[in-house]
This record gives sequence, C-alpha cells and structure tokens, in this order.
Amino acid sequence: MLNDGGTSVLECIVTKFGGSSLANDEQFKKVRSILELEPTRQYLIPSAPGKRFPSDEKVTDLLYACHSLASEGRPFAEEFRKIRERYLSIAAGLHLKVDIASALDQVEQGIAAGNSADWCASRGEYLCGLLIADYLGWRFLDAAEGIVFSENGRLLDDETQAKLSAALADRKPTVVPGFYGATRSGEVRTFSRGGSDITGALVARAVGADVYENWTDVSGFLMADPRIIDGPAEISSITYKELRELSHMGASVLHEDAMFPVHRAGIPTNIRNTNKPYHPGTMISKNPPNELSVPTITGIAGHKGYSVISVEKNMMNSEVGFGRKVLQVLEDRNIPFEHLPTGIDSMCVVVASEALNPAREDVLAEIGKLVEGSGSVSISDQMSIIATVGRGMVHNCGTAARLFSAMSRARINVRMIDQGSSELSIIVGVNDSDFEATIHAIYHEFVG
Amino acid sequence: MLNDGGTSVLECIVTKFGGSSLANDEQFKKVRSILELEPTRQYLIPSAPGKRFPSDEKVTDLLYACHSLASEGRPFAEEFRKIRERYLSIAAGLHLKVDIASALDQVEQGIAAGNSADWCASRGEYLCGLLIADYLGWRFLDAAEGIVFSENGRLLDDETQAKLSAALADRKPTVVPGFYGATRSGEVRTFSRGGSDITGALVARAVGADVYENWTDVSGFLMADPRIIDGPAEISSITYKELRELSHMGASVLHEDAMFPVHRAGIPTNIRNTNKPYHPGTMISKNPPNELSVPTITGIAGHKGYSVISVEKNMMNSEVGFGRKVLQVLEDRNIPFEHLPTGIDSMCVVVASEALNPAREDVLAEIGKLVEGSGSVSISDQMSIIATVGRGMVHNCGTAARLFSAMSRARINVRMIDQGSSELSIIVGVNDSDFEATIHAIYHEFVG
Repeated sequence: MLNDGGTSVLECIVTKFGGSSLANDEQFKKVRSILELEPTRQYLIPSAPGKRFPSDEKVTDLLYACHSLASEGRPFAEEFRKIRERYLSIAAGLHLKVDIASALDQVEQGIAAGNSADWCASRGEYLCGLLIADYLGWRFLDAAEGIVFSENGRLLDDETQAKLSAALADRKPTVVPGFYGATRSGEVRTFSRGGSDITGALVARAVGADVYENWTDVSGFLMADPRIIDGPAEISSITYKELRELSHMGASVLHEDAMFPVHRAGIPTNIRNTNKPYHPGTMISKNPPNELSVPTITGIAGHKGYSVISVEKNMMNSEVGFGRKVLQVLEDRNIPFEHLPTGIDSMCVVVASEALNPAREDVLAEIGKLVEGSGSVSISDQMSIIATVGRGMVHNCGTAARLFSAMSRARINVRMIDQGSSELSIIVGVNDSDFEATIHAIYHEFVG
Repeated sequence: MLNDGGTSVLECIVTKFGGSSLANDEQFKKVRSILELEPTRQYLIPSAPGKRFPSDEKVTDLLYACHSLASEGRPFAEEFRKIRERYLSIAAGLHLKVDIASALDQVEQGIAAGNSADWCASRGEYLCGLLIADYLGWRFLDAAEGIVFSENGRLLDDETQAKLSAALADRKPTVVPGFYGATRSGEVRTFSRGGSDITGALVARAVGADVYENWTDVSGFLMADPRIIDGPAEISSITYKELRELSHMGASVLHEDAMFPVHRAGIPTNIRNTNKPYHPGTMISKNPPNELSVPTITGIAGHKGYSVISVEKNMMNSEVGFGRKVLQVLEDRNIPFEHLPTGIDSMCVVVASEALNPAREDVLAEIGKLVEGSGSVSISDQMSIIATVGRGMVHNCGTAARLFSAMSRARINVRMIDQGSSELSIIVGVNDSDFEATIHAIYHEFVG
C-alpha cells in the first residue's frame, strides 16, 4: 500500500502492552486511543495488570501467592479478593459487558483445585485479555490454542509458528494474552517472567508483521544508565546485535528471548511509551534503513563485580590445548566466562564473581594442577566491565583513541581491553571504584 | 666481594659466544681480550664457527651436509675439506698447540662410520671448544659429560643440573661446548638450532652465576624491527616477561628455551656485542634493579599473516562450554590460538594462517556443526598482530590513549584489541596493509 507521497506505509502492526500500560481503566483508555491512531495495529498481546502506584502489587505476584497458599492448604481468599477487585474495577470503569465475575470464579476454583503454578500465574494475562478484547470489540484467542510447549516446558518453535499463523490467517484484529501457552495435551505452561514480550514476538512472526510494537512505560532505550548519567540521551535506532551487547551488560526493558523470533524474521521492534504515544521510541532492527548519519556510539552499559583468574605458565603458547583445559575446569563447575584476554605465557579468564565464588578454591586448585611447577594462578576481584557499543564504530579510526583519551584525562587505569573483530563494541575493564567515572568519561566524550 | 666504593662486584660470569664471534682467528682474539677485561668471566660456551662474510657457510651446515651425503653413500670429502680448512686456519693463526688435525680426522671417520646426525652436527662446537680452551689455557669439559638427555632427545633438567654443578664445583675456568649433550648411555643429542644459548643458560645456573653474558654480533635488542624503523633505539634493560612477549611476536637473538633456566634461577642475561665490547648491550632480568625512570614502552614487535575465525551464535553467552568446544576443534587439529576476543554471542579466534590453512575447510565444517541453525562461522585473513610491550605501561593511565590516538592520526583502522590484566602489553590487530604504518605510528608516538 502506498500513501499519497509515494512512500510505503505499514500494513500490519503487532502491539504488546506491558503491565503498567494495563494497570487500570485509565490505562486501558490510553491503549484504545493508541490503537485508534493507527488502524494497521491489528493484534494486541496484553500482560497482566501491573502496579498503579509504587507500593501497589502486580496481579501476577498475587496469583503466585494464591497458588502458594493453596498448595500449603492455607486460605487464599484475602489475596484473591485483591485480584478480583482489580479486574472488576477495570470492567466497571469501562462499562464492559463480558462476564468477568464468572471467569474470576473459575480461576478461584482452579486455584483451590490445586492447578499448577503455571496455570495460576497465566490467568492474569488470560483475564486481562478477556477485558481488552471486549473493550476493543476484537476477537479473543486463548494463547493455549496458539503457543505450544513441550512437556518439560520448552517452547516448540516450529509447531507454534504453524498453529499461530493458521489461527490468525483470517487477519481479523485479535487479542492474544501474553506469557503462556500449553502442551499438546493442553497443560498450561508459562515463559519466564516478562515472557509476554516473547508471545508478542511470536505473534508478530506468525502474521508476518511489518513492525512489532512493544508498549511500556519508558520512551525506549537510553544511551546510559540514568542512575549514573543525569538525563541520558535516548536511542532512536539500534540494531538487534547492538542491543544484545548492551542488554547483556545492563538492564533492559525487553525479555532477551523476545528478540530472536522477530530478529530472525527480519521484523523490527519498536519500543514505545503508552504514556507518550507520539514519542517515536526506539526502533530495533536488523539493519537500520537509510541512515543519513549514524552516531559514533549507540550506548554504554556495564557491570561491577567481576573476577580475573590470571594464569601464567612457561611456554604456554607452545602448548596446544592449554587454554581449552583451563576453560574445561570452569565448564565442569558450570561457570561461564565473559572475556579471555591473552598474553604470551599468560591468559586471564574474566568471570562474574558471583558465579566463581562458590567454586573459588576448587578452581584455584584445579588450575593450579595444570600449571604445577612451571607457572602460577591467582584471582583478583572487584573489576567492572564496561561495553561501549555502536555500529558507527565500525571502520571509524578514531573511536578507540577518543575512548582511551577520555579515560586517560579522567585518570582511570585500564585493567583490560577486549575488542573483537566485529568492531561493534569496545570492552574495557576497570576497578569497581572507577566504574561510574568511566561511564561518565565515555558518555561525555561521545555525547557531550 | 666488595670493591673500594662499597658496591658489590660480580664474582662469576658465564659467557656464551655465538658463531660469528668465533668465525676466524681475528674473532678468537676479540673473545680473549673480552675475557681478559673482566677476570670473573670464568666459563665460556662456544658455538661452532659461523659466517666470516655474508656468502660464507656455517660449519654446522657443512657438518649436516657431510652427514647427509655419507648416509646416502656418497663422498663427502669435498665438504669436509672446507670444515678442516676452517679449524686449521684458526689454529694456525693463533699458533695453537692442540692436535686439532687428529681430532678432525676422528670426526671425518665418525661421519664415514655412519654416526648420527646429532653427533656429526655437535662436532662443530666440540672442535671449536678444543681450540678456544687451548687458546685461553682453560680446562675443556665435553658437554656429553655434563648435559643429559633422555633417549627420545628431551633435556633431563634436574640430572643435568646435578651433573654440571658437580663437574664445575672446583670453579676452575672452563670451556663447555654448546648445542649438545648425551644420553645416559653416551649417545650424543643436540638441542634445536641456536641451542648453544641453552647450554650457556644451564652452565650459568649450575655454577650460580651472577650474570649470563650472551655475546653476539649485535649490541642487544632494538625497540623495533630495523627493516621497518630506521635506526631504532636500543633496549638497555628488559624483563624476561617483556622479552618473551616481544620475541613471540618477532625475531630474537636468543633461543626461547634459553631464557627459562636463568630466569627461574634469578640470573640476569646480558646480550653483548663481541665487536663492541664496551657497549653495555641489553640486560634481561626478572626485576630490573633500581630503575630511576622506566620508559613507557620497552619495544614493539609484530607479525603479518593471521586469520580470524569469527563465530556467531544466538545466546552463546548463556551456553557454558561453547568457547571450550570451539577451542577443542582447533586442538584436535593441533592449531594453537593466539587471541580470543569475545563479544556477546560472538567470539573470534585469532590463529596463524599458516597453522590454519591445512585444516581450513575442516575447521569451518566442524565449527559450523556447533552453530548449525543458530549462528554462523567465517574466516577472514590478512590480519597483522602488533604487540606494544612495556613494564612502564602498568598503572599508566595514558598509554592506551596515546597508542590509539597515534593510530587514529595515521588513519589506521583497529580490527582487534587485546589487553590482558598483566597490563604489560597492548595487542592490536590491523590489516596486513597497515602493518608497517602501525609500527611507525606507535614507535614515533612513544620514542620520537
């Protein structure tokens, strides 16, 4: 479809609204007006109602609490009353006709009957989906009819794609509740918390959406952590790869597993703010189209609390397999490594201290055996890792120079550097005490 | 022993002279005057006579040629005549009394009798040792009586230390020919080429030398390759660790295995120039004593011809053991890796193209299996690795900034960075076409 100006317009948008976007009847009204702004928004994936104010409780938490009480044979009516009140007040505020009271009774009976934790938790999205479908006048598709899990709770990707696209083939506007699905035998299973993002991505892929809109309570991603940088700039455009590098290192508003279905299907994800519907948010795509100018860096993220296992061994470089043996020691203890800077006769393994500490002495002893008589192993702690990420850094000669000059001016000592051949990021290691100063130095160098 | 000024003087120096330092009778005279300059130079390890002029032949090469001809049943008299002439001319020039003619006859008979290649090659040092011991009036100790090898040709380190230190316990000035030793049953075995350096280090350790002097035809190490940098600065002081990093990356005047015995025994090695006996050369030590000022960088070295195996895999970072599996593929094919820069969901393995190429397709296929359906693997070639090494870089905030600024000004794109926690070196990867320009940029930034 072409509009008057001859540029293509979006034909099909899948929207996912988070818990804060559906916390009460006022938020439901915002959702409807957002959908009315753009008629190609034809699919909606709701989360369960979230917090209306900071001390409020999320419906999903209340449902888990009810299940927990019921499974111990204790009364849960008090907790369930809070759930009932949330849904009834939304239905009343919007004058909805759907018989939500009966649906709530069935959920209460299901909990009392000893249904699974997954089933209980999933009812938050299920009930919310019933309300929003009624409010919009859209079809309701139970996610148990479209999202297929294996008996051990793993998503069956191909089967889900087939079932969902068949169910939605008629292209009627549809509400599909987030967070859950069912096994072939009909047992409800959920994703991990925040999994409505995944449902949205699966629906977007199934209908071949042009865009997957993920509506939250923030206007997309920020270039740096606002607890460290005051009022950081917003990221208007980011690639899936960049986002993955950043989200590995810091907080994210998106469930990690939610990126892959849409990424692989070539569908961009747009993070939007329900409370600022005209803000363009952050567009996540495989290859940002028609970039007139790319900022040098896209974002900065980091973590404190890494340990460095330093291994020295005479003639290590002449010994094929030594590095593999060191990694085997960690693998045997289920400790993932983050970075592996190497010198001649020395290698460092950077791991999260939290992952290392339970097996710390054991790891020292085992690697100690590998270097016995001809080397040494030691662990130093309190290292931060900071990733500076940007597709604008590729083939840009000056980025590393600017980054390290900024750190030098701030008198920060570099403990580690790792830049892979992707050139998409530069990783630096600094003392934990230099963590915030490093992010400041890099941010102000590149953003101002 | 204390001299008048109250500072300690050296009590025992072990000297090793290379082939060019013993190429003819004029060079023998230089060696004697060097020994006379410092009476604590009490041990001498000679190589076999080397080249007197660029197109000359080394005695060791001639001996291997004789053995090769003899083993094919072909006459080798012509080649042996050249050997005989070398030794006889030195003996004549110095008016030596030792019966070198008979010793040469015995060697010729040994070659004709089918003695091993190791035995034949070792005679170069053996005969040279006879000459220099006679010239100096020192005792001659056949290395077969002091250096012990296993039957399969590996140095028996502890046994050698015991036997050598017993043989030299009387502290009489002694000549020990380099390059060879013998098994317990008396079979002569040699080190790899250049192995006289190792003999010298073993003698230095056995007698507890204060310094191991390695006399060559250069005045120590240079900060950069003189084929790239015009008249590079000399390195006056370097640690064993720094030298190992540099020599792994570039040419070296020292056999790699020669560093460990003295390094571990805490004995410094002094690289000296036989043709400039008053030049202090390069002092290699564990911890350089009393450094008033340390230059920021000690040296720069690099190599062309590396390949980067880039592996991408969804959620790689969540999969403990993936990195180890990739290294296993290389280990199974006996390919050592040089660097391992990692991103999120991506890792690069940097290997020498020469080592990779024979198994290139096989490696691609095997790693391809590891990422099947959820990732990719590719190889890019023509990367150079350049190591900038310096103990002065430790805790120096500005080094990385200066290095990358210099590269940026030269418009060189950085393909890879690896700095381990030792902070002793920064490794950069650049295109082969930028190799020389990178060394120029770094050298002139730090040295001027």
